[in-house]
Amino acid sequence: MSKGIPKRSEDYSLWYNELVKKADLAENSPVRGCMVIKPYGFSIWEKMQAAIDTMFKETGHTNAYFPLFIPKSYLSKEADHVEGFAKECAVVTHYRLKNSDNGTGVVVDPDAKLEEELIVRPTSETVIWNTYKNWIQSYRDLPLLINQWANVVRWEMRTRLFLRTAEFLWQEGHTAHATKQEAVDEARLILDVYTDFVENFMAVPVIKGVKTESEKFAGAVDTYCIEALMQDGKALQAGTSHFLGQNFAKAFDVKFADKEGKLDHVWGTSWGVTTRLMGALIMVHSDDNGLVLPPKLAPSPVVIVPIYKTDEQAKAIGDQAKKIIESLKAKGIIAKFDDRDTHKPGWKFAEYELKGIPVRIAIGPRDLENGTVEIARRDTLSKEVANIEGIENRIEELLEDIQANLFNKARVHRDENITKVDSFEEFKKVLDDKGGFLLAHWDGTPETEQKIKEETKATIRCIPLDAEMEEGTCIYSGKPSSQRVLFARAY
Amino acid sequence: MSKGIPKRSEDYSLWYNELVKKADLAENSPVRGCMVIKPYGFSIWEKMQAAIDTMFKETGHTNAYFPLFIPKSYLSKEADHVEGFAKECAVVTHYRLKNSDNGTGVVVDPDAKLEEELIVRPTSETVIWNTYKNWIQSYRDLPLLINQWANVVRWEMRTRLFLRTAEFLWQEGHTAHATKQEAVDEARLILDVYTDFVENFMAVPVIKGVKTESEKFAGAVDTYCIEALMQDGKALQAGTSHFLGQNFAKAFDVKFADKEGKLDHVWGTSWGVTTRLMGALIMVHSDDNGLVLPPKLAPSPVVIVPIYKTDEQAKAIGDQAKKIIESLKAKGIIAKFDDRDTHKPGWKFAEYELKGIPVRIAIGPRDLENGTVEIARRDTLSKEVANIEGIENRIEELLEDIQANLFNKARVHRDENITKVDSFEEFKKVLDDKGGFLLAHWDGTPETEQKIKEETKATIRCIPLDAEMEEGTCIYSGKPSSQRVLFARAY
Repeated sequence: MSKGIPKRSEDYSLWYNELVKKADLAENSPVRGCMVIKPYGFSIWEKMQAAIDTMFKETGHTNAYFPLFIPKSYLSKEADHVEGFAKECAVVTHYRLKNSDNGTGVVVDPDAKLEEELIVRPTSETVIWNTYKNWIQSYRDLPLLINQWANVVRWEMRTRLFLRTAEFLWQEGHTAHATKQEAVDEARLILDVYTDFVENFMAVPVIKGVKTESEKFAGAVDTYCIEALMQDGKALQAGTSHFLGQNFAKAFDVKFADKEGKLDHVWGTSWGVTTRLMGALIMVHSDDNGLVLPPKLAPSPVVIVPIYKTDEQAKAIGDQAKKIIESLKAKGIIAKFDDRDTHKPGWKFAEYELKGIPVRIAIGPRDLENGTVEIARRDTLSKEVANIEGIENRIEELLEDIQANLFNKARVHRDENITKVDSFEEFKKVLDDKGGFLLAHWDGTPETEQKIKEETKATIRCIPLDAEMEEGTCIYSGKPSSQRVLFARAY
Repeated sequence: MSKGIPKRSEDYSLWYNELVKKADLAENSPVRGCMVIKPYGFSIWEKMQAAIDTMFKETGHTNAYFPLFIPKSYLSKEADHVEGFAKECAVVTHYRLKNSDNGTGVVVDPDAKLEEELIVRPTSETVIWNTYKNWIQSYRDLPLLINQWANVVRWEMRTRLFLRTAEFLWQEGHTAHATKQEAVDEARLILDVYTDFVENFMAVPVIKGVKTESEKFAGAVDTYCIEALMQDGKALQAGTSHFLGQNFAKAFDVKFADKEGKLDHVWGTSWGVTTRLMGALIMVHSDDNGLVLPPKLAPSPVVIVPIYKTDEQAKAIGDQAKKIIESLKAKGIIAKFDDRDTHKPGWKFAEYELKGIPVRIAIGPRDLENGTVEIARRDTLSKEVANIEGIENRIEELLEDIQANLFNKARVHRDENITKVDSFEEFKKVLDDKGGFLLAHWDGTPETEQKIKEETKATIRCIPLDAEMEEGTCIYSGKPSSQRVLFARAY
């Protein structure tokens, strides 16, 4: 135990829950299944949002905002969609409360019943495609490339902070195109954007693939996904991008006239990443001492802690710290100076370790004399003494090194935990002994997929996009298969 | 009529509605009372958000996120609060739909009834103060300065795009302090932040004041506000900042130990601005030709339109445009080059006029020969020919001038429409003939305020903070009064 967090080796699940709370990332609210994202946690999410939003804009997308509520009847318009979401919808039935007769509070006013119940959006395809019907008439209106940042609600019985909550924050992109190929290209482009963000900002390596029929989005033709591996050997779906075909265009009658005036339904995509990414970020890099943040997503990648006894020392160290902050700022690096006198240096060291600050600088009276500082890096927990002269270069180098080190460490762990297995016995053994990703042959049927899931709790995470064609036999049914698919137990 | 927008003088209300739709800002959704904020409208809201968010951060606030849902019982904990909001709450009563027996769609599953109904937040004081109870123990935890960007729902029977919608977007700040004075100072600081934003970014002059008892926020001790005047002489409340006293701290039992260990309830504030600001922005500056945007909030303050006949000309103009865009970029000014060949220059000119782009640059073959461009400014509809050499300085100057001009024009209009009146006859006459703000004496009672409202539809917008003390008699009751208050008919 350290700072009240259990060790990962003792109880990974409890370690995660406690870390999320102790590092001030999020907590459960008294509202069933809903979380409170605390200021520190939210500041990390804001960094994620900013990076992703920039990437969307660079690829031609714009933001908009659509209603929180969806008329119940909309859901039914796409058959698979309603099947997928009806079982977990929060339903608004009334629009007013009134004082209770016994004066103890408020009750629902039965006179304020809605004619048609409203669903709190679990995802916005229906309300957006209903709108697109009016926005799209001709090929000139295409492609329509829109994203929204929003909250959505899916009623979950078993929730976990960030990983599975009834309400969560996300972005949802919804695009419309003139041709099938354009829509497929868009879905793949976004998968690349997600990969770029998750690998290069979050420092989390992913495997790109396509979901099986039973795992794909309710209403999609194809669901592309990126899958990451957590330290406990379980997989986590980090983002999905759906090629919708003409399904929603047909359900909501969205047609366009091409250059020759011929009418056809448009082709669509939708795609999203959620606050779940926070869960992945935490689980991939953090250790028994607390959170470990990649520099690119740390709200403040550097903190400076002064160590002093006299006011004079405090003043001199403060001046020095300001100079360092300025020199880092010139390089675009944000450093925070923690000169609070309500907490001792040791307390602060522990606090920033717990909160995963990539680089901590300590300056004491002897450092002032020597023209040095002490630098501690969070990922390796190593320390070094560095000259103040040129410190900004050293810090910049360190931050780049930390970013790269986190990614490489995660990639090595991930690669060491991809196992090719050729029999169901081996499959079960590896799954129980080691976990991780399992590459195995599968006969392509939902029946086999379902049976393997029932017997092992492992699901097909994806059919990897870069999978080699390889003749083999299904580990479960023995039937022929032409490529391996990726299995894992997952969050 | 111009571009299908009625003139302001003919029908101000219709002009507004049509402008909002035609300029692609927002539209009604089929979901009762909820709007769709279209990409162009949302890009303006994003600029607003970014500016406000920066100001909050510069004044020490951080963002967080609290649940969308509020247990019904929470509302009742603060007596005034429940009185104010219970009548307009969207209520979630069930968490699942199921297939209807006749197979025509989905119905609410009666077996999935919630034990306690949930309210979709109309504002988050209750759920946030319930959380603060756990976050605040000692003076070291104070002040707590938190903001959230969120959607809220207040069931409105009569809605108007941006001005009054069932769902709207806003930011809501919620702070906790050790002393009464600190909380009052915070509420006033935020009022200054709002004033700064609305005047210096939106170019809309405001009057700062405090609300009367009957107009204040349900649960506040004092509500500070900023009031703006629209072109039709009606007022619009642009932002409010509430000093909550210890009301919510007492309702949710939020206490802190001071340095001596003495326990006391904390002092609170809450404050917000909403997508309503979009309504104010549109109504203050726009004209019969369409939207007029202040440069600081225009997603792209400059557009460049090429005029050409041959491909060669198009290429040469394109090269020139790119140089201009680069030189503007170096000054932090975003310019858009509209080289679409699907639309003619005339169409584009009309489009950017309608959309309120501050500065439009046209480049034709003769301009290339002469080393000039044609510049048109949206606010005055005037044109000039400028040399390409040093064009970036001229544009920068123009944008500053437009920003200042819009503010001054709005201020002159506002000032010309503040009338001191000394009798109820005069009050009614000015209100009907001219509208605007009326400064009049009032006896300080809610009864008189209510009667004036019933007879004239004018409300007390605020008691101005800078009001001079002046002996007088109430225009309605004839009772003594020591200062004038600000009346108006309002949105």
